[in-house]
Amino acid sequence: MKTANEISASVIGRLPRYYRFLCELQNTGTVRISSNELSKRMGLTASQIRQDFNCFGGFGQQGYGYNVEQLKNEMARILGLNTPKKAILIGAGNLGRAVAAQMRFEEMGFQLIGIFDSDTAFCGMKIKGIPILTDNDLTPFCSVHRPEMAILCLPQAQAPAIVDELILLGVDSFWNFSHYDIHTKYPGANVENVHMSDSLMTLSYKIKNTEIR
Amino acid sequence: MKTANEISASVIGRLPRYYRFLCELQNTGTVRISSNELSKRMGLTASQIRQDFNCFGGFGQQGYGYNVEQLKNEMARILGLNTPKKAILIGAGNLGRAVAAQMRFEEMGFQLIGIFDSDTAFCGMKIKGIPILTDNDLTPFCSVHRPEMAILCLPQAQAPAIVDELILLGVDSFWNFSHYDIHTKYPGANVENVHMSDSLMTLSYKIKNTEIR
Repeated sequence: MKTANEISASVIGRLPRYYRFLCELQNTGTVRISSNELSKRMGLTASQIRQDFNCFGGFGQQGYGYNVEQLKNEMARILGLNTPKKAILIGAGNLGRAVAAQMRFEEMGFQLIGIFDSDTAFCGMKIKGIPILTDNDLTPFCSVHRPEMAILCLPQAQAPAIVDELILLGVDSFWNFSHYDIHTKYPGANVENVHMSDSLMTLSYKIKNTEIR
Repeated sequence: MKTANEISASVIGRLPRYYRFLCELQNTGTVRISSNELSKRMGLTASQIRQDFNCFGGFGQQGYGYNVEQLKNEMARILGLNTPKKAILIGAGNLGRAVAAQMRFEEMGFQLIGIFDSDTAFCGMKIKGIPILTDNDLTPFCSVHRPEMAILCLPQAQAPAIVDELILLGVDSFWNFSHYDIHTKYPGANVENVHMSDSLMTLSYKIKNTEIR
């Protein structure tokens, strides 16, 4: 079993996929699955799956397969999904509203407790019952409610000042949809970037190079 | 210089970031940049940047730095951003509408030409001037307009049947926001997955393990 610091980013990146897959298996009534069957259905090798699981002490017995519910619960525990962390959303434009409306935060270890936008025109509107506040409300709100994570759905130009403010308010984790590179200034922050345009450009590259082949 | 098949996924994954960064440099009036300065500002080593660029034949002269505009144009060419590819959006719910409204498709090598939803309640509504059609319109539309890429913003349960239909219609590239694993059935398709919930769970993991340290 490895310590958290020894586990590679690629192993960590596969954990949510294992978790999702195990949820699906449980929903379709599968009680037990062999590592061979799991590997076939996930498009990974059985040895890779065993190596990944061994980082966390391994689950199940050789030749006996995995208990789906048990393994799912273990994944949820490793991912921290059972301990809700308070989150706020910064930016209530198209993307921010979609993220707030679409995501099942509770199932993923978060509780959305506040929404903020610099545009006062949104003020008073609600998403999932949560009223949209202005950026001026950010400091008093955070001082009282102590969120630890912020979802950044704001334009890149506005991001640096807001991140500075949030860091001072004790928010040190970011789900970042903006293109502001938080790690350059705050290397210790927990950051997950969702760079949608990078993904779309990568697809453009793949298409271009399929055509050439 | 390597062929497209020899270039690793991690190099390809960095290309959009180079491109974005060069656009910013150009917007702020920077004409020339050394690989050292570029590496410092991007948080990569100068040697990694040189290695990445060498995959495409290398750009610029040793000790002389890169011409920003020239390098940006070269990246755009490599990424295929200058040859617009026709794309359709499947699913006009919260996420689909946000993606359609938010993304600057033209700047990323795509042209959004059609939007479809299984819910006829959306029928007749428009996003960016594009009318939302029903799934029944998909076959006639594709037969005439020949899109090559589909953006999947639909529930996972609906994805397999739609992907089967799209593949038959000649659409073989997917920007996939659903959790349906297209590659298991169609290993030859061009796929870029945006798994937002995976990213959020990974952040949950990082926060949990920061607290432990």
